[in-house]
Amino acid sequence: MPVYKAPTRDTRFVINELIGLEHFQNLPGFANAARDLTDAVIEEAGRFVAEVVAPLNQIGDREGCTRHPDGSVTTPTGFKAAYRQYVDGGWATLSGPEQYGGQGLPHVIGFVMEEYLASANQAFAMYPGLANGAISAIISKGSPEQQATYLPKMISGEWLGTMNLTEPHCGTDLGLLRTRAEPQADGSYAITGTKIFISAGDHDLCENIIHLVLAKTPGAPESSKGISLFIVPKFLVNADGTPGARNAVTVGSIENKMGIHGNATCVMNYDGATGFLVGEECKGLAAMFIMMNAARLGVGMQGLAQAEVAYQNAVVYAGDRRQGRALTGPAEPSQKADLLFVHADVRRMLMDAKTFTEGMRALCLWGALQVDLSHDSPTEDERQAADDVISLLTPVIKGYGTDMGYKTATDMQQIWGGHGYISENGMEQFVRDARIAMIYEGANGVQAMDLCGRKLAANGGRAIQRLFALVDAEVAGDNADPAVALVAERLGQANTELKSATMWFMRNAMANPDNLGAGAYAFMTMTGVVSLGLMWLKMARIAAAALAAGSDEAAFYQAKLTCAQHWALRFAPQAGALRHEVEAGAQTVMALPVEAFATA
Amino acid sequence: MPVYKAPTRDTRFVINELIGLEHFQNLPGFANAARDLTDAVIEEAGRFVAEVVAPLNQIGDREGCTRHPDGSVTTPTGFKAAYRQYVDGGWATLSGPEQYGGQGLPHVIGFVMEEYLASANQAFAMYPGLANGAISAIISKGSPEQQATYLPKMISGEWLGTMNLTEPHCGTDLGLLRTRAEPQADGSYAITGTKIFISAGDHDLCENIIHLVLAKTPGAPESSKGISLFIVPKFLVNADGTPGARNAVTVGSIENKMGIHGNATCVMNYDGATGFLVGEECKGLAAMFIMMNAARLGVGMQGLAQAEVAYQNAVVYAGDRRQGRALTGPAEPSQKADLLFVHADVRRMLMDAKTFTEGMRALCLWGALQVDLSHDSPTEDERQAADDVISLLTPVIKGYGTDMGYKTATDMQQIWGGHGYISENGMEQFVRDARIAMIYEGANGVQAMDLCGRKLAANGGRAIQRLFALVDAEVAGDNADPAVALVAERLGQANTELKSATMWFMRNAMANPDNLGAGAYAFMTMTGVVSLGLMWLKMARIAAAALAAGSDEAAFYQAKLTCAQHWALRFAPQAGALRHEVEAGAQTVMALPVEAFATA
Repeated sequence: MPVYKAPTRDTRFVINELIGLEHFQNLPGFANAARDLTDAVIEEAGRFVAEVVAPLNQIGDREGCTRHPDGSVTTPTGFKAAYRQYVDGGWATLSGPEQYGGQGLPHVIGFVMEEYLASANQAFAMYPGLANGAISAIISKGSPEQQATYLPKMISGEWLGTMNLTEPHCGTDLGLLRTRAEPQADGSYAITGTKIFISAGDHDLCENIIHLVLAKTPGAPESSKGISLFIVPKFLVNADGTPGARNAVTVGSIENKMGIHGNATCVMNYDGATGFLVGEECKGLAAMFIMMNAARLGVGMQGLAQAEVAYQNAVVYAGDRRQGRALTGPAEPSQKADLLFVHADVRRMLMDAKTFTEGMRALCLWGALQVDLSHDSPTEDERQAADDVISLLTPVIKGYGTDMGYKTATDMQQIWGGHGYISENGMEQFVRDARIAMIYEGANGVQAMDLCGRKLAANGGRAIQRLFALVDAEVAGDNADPAVALVAERLGQANTELKSATMWFMRNAMANPDNLGAGAYAFMTMTGVVSLGLMWLKMARIAAAALAAGSDEAAFYQAKLTCAQHWALRFAPQAGALRHEVEAGAQTVMALPVEAFATA
Repeated sequence: MPVYKAPTRDTRFVINELIGLEHFQNLPGFANAARDLTDAVIEEAGRFVAEVVAPLNQIGDREGCTRHPDGSVTTPTGFKAAYRQYVDGGWATLSGPEQYGGQGLPHVIGFVMEEYLASANQAFAMYPGLANGAISAIISKGSPEQQATYLPKMISGEWLGTMNLTEPHCGTDLGLLRTRAEPQADGSYAITGTKIFISAGDHDLCENIIHLVLAKTPGAPESSKGISLFIVPKFLVNADGTPGARNAVTVGSIENKMGIHGNATCVMNYDGATGFLVGEECKGLAAMFIMMNAARLGVGMQGLAQAEVAYQNAVVYAGDRRQGRALTGPAEPSQKADLLFVHADVRRMLMDAKTFTEGMRALCLWGALQVDLSHDSPTEDERQAADDVISLLTPVIKGYGTDMGYKTATDMQQIWGGHGYISENGMEQFVRDARIAMIYEGANGVQAMDLCGRKLAANGGRAIQRLFALVDAEVAGDNADPAVALVAERLGQANTELKSATMWFMRNAMANPDNLGAGAYAFMTMTGVVSLGLMWLKMARIAAAALAAGSDEAAFYQAKLTCAQHWALRFAPQAGALRHEVEAGAQTVMALPVEAFATA
């Protein structure tokens, strides 16, 4: 069976040394996050996830979810009991607001748990993961009464939630949606329509499920400006807060899919189900984006998470399997063959993976900090700065993070050779599970367009200028250590490439917007490379300082410094090729008529 | 259900216009390949494969193969009947030698059929595909008696064959193998041992299966120099050529795996099975490489094949699914949304795919021609030149071709959005099936080492110098057409990067062989980029000439020219980043102790 151990030492490095969470204790919401507490939470979370959740990953893949003849859905063996332990242990409440029974810890701590859960069992992690999006929307846009009715139960984990956006003919383009909401005399709405690809749409983990559903009210505009958001509970809630009558929402079927078999991906049928408007009519898009942005960061984290667990299992194999000899001569002459670890090409993949996962962990948690700072910083300027950066980087964390998660999972499977293709060894499940993260919550091409079409231009390019400035400032720091200097030099070069690409867009996207569309994906990837480099330069500095100070964890910091150099030598140069791709523009991309793509 | 149409027009372009097969009719073996015949064979092959083989692809994936309690193995519904049609239609015989009942067509024509079969149904294609490797070994190394006994039935397709190399503890490193061959009084050997991952190891498609098995004779050296190759028929062959007594080889189990479910991947148990030595004792490695090289080209072709079928289905979806609006304004204002085709990011992926598949088809068939020329050219110099080039490019076609096949299949799945993740739509099967090609017949990292550790240095670097010269000569051609000039310029630059990387290896690999190992993969990818570019420059020239001559297929040739430019603008720049990766060397790759990879 595959192994999983939560990388708690690395998490603590990011939380304590890179982010320095303690320094923010003056902020509301951070007061609870004293280091001894967060360190304990991290360790305990890691232990819980590794012991309780990870062992169910392969079972979930093999069994999948079942829709019974009565329409009820059950999850794989062990999921219900594990979820019960999750709720009883208070794990659902980590970063929930204290007023609704949460522990009030910063989002960044909740995010640590999300990573561990997704590594251990992505299909399982999605049940509480989707609820987080629903919770965010109700916190931001729900009425006080809705908040009082739903949030305590959802934050405790007693109830879960879903996000119902997609319809058979309507994915990215929400303006096309057909689900209707008819106002009723009592102020509620009757929701009718079909939603597809609803993750965790139904299951047996908890007593109620709160669906957040996009629908159109009568006479609403035929565009995304005409959509409204509704709360549609599986069981209507009684006045005393207990689940009451069954609502008219049913599961039509469960999809057969490439991976995440342990999560029920449902076709949901709403047949005049009772729904409650969240916020105002036709203002659903803004509320949807609140759900979506929370979910997108979580999905980026899933990319990291699958890369991490696949990496751990590749390390085990590389340290166990003997095949061939080191190019430099037998490493263990007394054995018939050397360990895979001696092979530079195997090491290359492991170093790429280590550099990606540790860099991405830093980026995700640093990004989650920006979410916290965008809410909790004392001044509007500070809140705005944090919001600018995380708004810009959300599509990058989602798009680049999941692309690299899939690539890394694939590389780690490759280290296992033929054994990696065999189901029982678990490596191929990581790849199949990682694949969905590039698709859902906005396919990565949509992320690229969000970045380049929306975030880049907003406020006169303020957000990308902030990123450039952050990187320039970091590059201009103390580069006395030669390893740090290498990272700074290459990061500076990559940042220059990113600036050039940005300038190219400015000069060429107005004349032909397809120049933006054709280069957006490469631009997103470049921004990912630079963002990862920003993290690695910060981490290299911390590591160099720790080594200079004679840390008794020299091996840990030396590894950080080596990974930072690995980023500089092997990730940074991609920026140049990607700039060329951006600057290639739409010329060949849009040149051919549609007929030219048909097979003759 | 997914669609498949054999790309016969493009195949004929490569065969007739790029390769110009007719020009080689003076060569033995090419006399049968008159253009009207090969054109007819190509069209008929395409029709057969699309009608008979493609419809079984999803069935094969869903049903898989079954090992029955009596140890027999059956293939999915329809496979046996389709294979019967394949044999009855004479498709197995295309490029087999006439003396054994083959049609004596060049390998390049057999390769066309391999592509079509693998696109339509990779799991099915592997049954005859594996036999090809076995046939090659018997043709090259078998005794006249063995050739007479096995080849006619194998070339007709009445019997199939397998390649038995891998053992539980022995994949890449064949020196570790434990299967034993004990000489018997009658000149045969008793073969005992366990082989794993044996594709098409047993099945119900034909009456006999000829296993080619690597084993060690008593006292053989404990290295790959101690292995011998044996023929081990499932049924021993009677004097009259009919299958006789059942040999002591049985299927222990069928593996559950990520994809290619329709092919039986078997654990084979040899319990004193009767085997017949092929060639000499302890000379099995050379015979194995004959099988392997044939198989590796075929596997590279599988990369192309999965990319092609995935591309065709992405094109269908892009022309059917409506979502969002063109960035340049609504393309079809009367519709509620535009087709996916209007989106530059979708087009980018389709153009990448078209550029890869058409370029790779050219490279594979041009490569297959080199195989033919290495056997059939009139002078030793010409034979040697062809052999140098194809020996060098075999690991590139295998490694780069399958990496890009998987990437392309993944991109095409991405175009389908969430629907691409749903099993019934078939896109995710292409990805799962494509994944194995990066692993089997030598994992791609092994291909990279074959290229850099063996092929690059052989004969003082003669082969890579030949490739450089071929590219330089092509770049130095008539570049009057501006589109051709762009391709030539960028190919020249990419070739310069490849030369630099080669020089870097020469300067740095001796001092530390791990510098070679750490850069080998990037070097293989660079060589793939340049080789694809060589094909695109050749094709661009042909297309420009056809357009200048007023061809009545202007759209076809214009598309070729556009794809060539797409290669120049979007593939060629990768060479620069890859050179940086090569030149990064082993420094960070091998720096950390093994313990640093453990999760803390």
